[in-house]
Amino acid sequence: MGEFELLARVRERLPPAGPRLRLGSGDDAAIAVPGGATATSVDAVVDGIHFRRERASLRQIGHKALATALSDLAAMGAEAGEAYVTLGVPPDLDEDGCLELLDGMTALAAQTGTALAGGDVTRAGELFLSIAVVGHADDDDAFVARAGAQPGDALVLTGEVGGARAGLALLEDPRLEEQAADAAAALRARQLEPHPQLRAGRILARAGATAMIDLSDGLAGDAPHLAERSGVGLRIDGECVPIAAGAIEVLNASGEGLLLALEGGEDYELLAAIPAGQLAQATRAVHEAAEGLPLTVIGEVVEGEGVELRLPDGRLLRPGRGFDQLA
Amino acid sequence: MGEFELLARVRERLPPAGPRLRLGSGDDAAIAVPGGATATSVDAVVDGIHFRRERASLRQIGHKALATALSDLAAMGAEAGEAYVTLGVPPDLDEDGCLELLDGMTALAAQTGTALAGGDVTRAGELFLSIAVVGHADDDDAFVARAGAQPGDALVLTGEVGGARAGLALLEDPRLEEQAADAAAALRARQLEPHPQLRAGRILARAGATAMIDLSDGLAGDAPHLAERSGVGLRIDGECVPIAAGAIEVLNASGEGLLLALEGGEDYELLAAIPAGQLAQATRAVHEAAEGLPLTVIGEVVEGEGVELRLPDGRLLRPGRGFDQLA
Repeated sequence: MGEFELLARVRERLPPAGPRLRLGSGDDAAIAVPGGATATSVDAVVDGIHFRRERASLRQIGHKALATALSDLAAMGAEAGEAYVTLGVPPDLDEDGCLELLDGMTALAAQTGTALAGGDVTRAGELFLSIAVVGHADDDDAFVARAGAQPGDALVLTGEVGGARAGLALLEDPRLEEQAADAAAALRARQLEPHPQLRAGRILARAGATAMIDLSDGLAGDAPHLAERSGVGLRIDGECVPIAAGAIEVLNASGEGLLLALEGGEDYELLAAIPAGQLAQATRAVHEAAEGLPLTVIGEVVEGEGVELRLPDGRLLRPGRGFDQLA
Repeated sequence: MGEFELLARVRERLPPAGPRLRLGSGDDAAIAVPGGATATSVDAVVDGIHFRRERASLRQIGHKALATALSDLAAMGAEAGEAYVTLGVPPDLDEDGCLELLDGMTALAAQTGTALAGGDVTRAGELFLSIAVVGHADDDDAFVARAGAQPGDALVLTGEVGGARAGLALLEDPRLEEQAADAAAALRARQLEPHPQLRAGRILARAGATAMIDLSDGLAGDAPHLAERSGVGLRIDGECVPIAAGAIEVLNASGEGLLLALEGGEDYELLAAIPAGQLAQATRAVHEAAEGLPLTVIGEVVEGEGVELRLPDGRLLRPGRGFDQLA
């Protein structure tokens, strides 16, 4: 497989470029006219660490790599713009395999209005993808960072958590399927084909969210980042956190299902702080624009520092930076 | 080594961010206010394919990874802006090794006015780096693509070629050092620490260059890209092409030194088409602004297609897309 031939076949499959892209793949660089301000993030995934080729199709691997990158743009309240993809191709991945990976990306790119604007393909010992994504807003104040949450703000969560962790458990041990009943396929999809909450992110930004983060490392892993960057404390009421259907039942097999669901990463939902007065309007707007996506108040922003997570049985958890510090 | 701890140490070492960067590393995405138009490119390097850790220091590997990415911006005539770095860290690379890689990048970033604005660090089976770079101009017309060369334009080259290929030969076989005499260190530096011609690129763009490309795959490999994208032919006079001192002598050991120097990649010089009337002014401006860098007319743009390279002895070469098609 020649790099040039592969790139030519890739270019044939690209969705139409967005209005900002003036020159796409095939030159020394892509040219864009961004408008006001940009949010840019890079995310890399490596075989055996972020995914396993025996558990996910190449299409799903491509989808998820782009989805996780776009999720960072969602967390800024950005409009998705361009993606630049680096592909490390191991000896056992042929040209058709590369195109299957790309198909997973192009489908999601088309859904989200993202232009695949450039990339690099290289031989490698193992499959890896690194994706740089650029999102847009009219000006830099329109983006929502992790810093900015104010005591008194409500803490809101899009969608449900725990599904991706339960999906992973199902992929690792198919016998758990009987615990999940009808929910197994949806749980596996949460793990393999996450959906970046771009619309909800933009709506929350417009509705006045003061701080926002996407849950890649789970509620217990990511809430402390928001607290630390904002210089505030967070109180989360575990009873209010929506858990994906079937997740607790599946996860009970490996420990305390509720705890594992609250800790579980890769749901790519958004956690945001929002002034109480804007809450009703934001909830309605998210629900309407993002196909019925629930926005749930799960706690509040308080003076101080750190995160307190109260479980339904009254136990109090103090998540640190990651799961391993969950008290 | 924790990812968070490494990233914190990385952030301490970053050069000051440029005027466009409003929020750097440490959030979901970096925020920038680009101004007019952007040129964006990604470049990946993998251990054992693009470099060998036994032949280059980690600092040099970091330098070269960023340099080759920035060279694509030079070829657009862009001003360097931001870089986003993905680092795949194998088990045998410790935190100090990662910081050494980064030191090579930060030194070049400071030299070129590039802000290291974000990144991702992941475990990996082998060392790889993927770097996305964003360059700027007042508007998209200010960039120079590969397309646009017109019959009658002069074909110009910055600096000299063949040095990086000779440097590689010296690294592979130190006994060749006696062929290179005093030039050996400079030739190795051409291979290990290439310099992106950002200033020359901007000057050529302002001077009216109609098409431009950087020589990563060598004159024989890259000139055909410019010809093809512009829909023109190129005639190159091999006698006019400046060859790095000592390169031919070193390369004579593995074949016809002059041919290998003309084919040799990784010099990262710029090849541009420029209207004849603007030539004198462009040459002066490049020489003045880029510390004595020569700009040499090596041929002309003609009607037709393909590249003809006439050697000093009268033989005519017709480079195709890469070395292997060199007739």
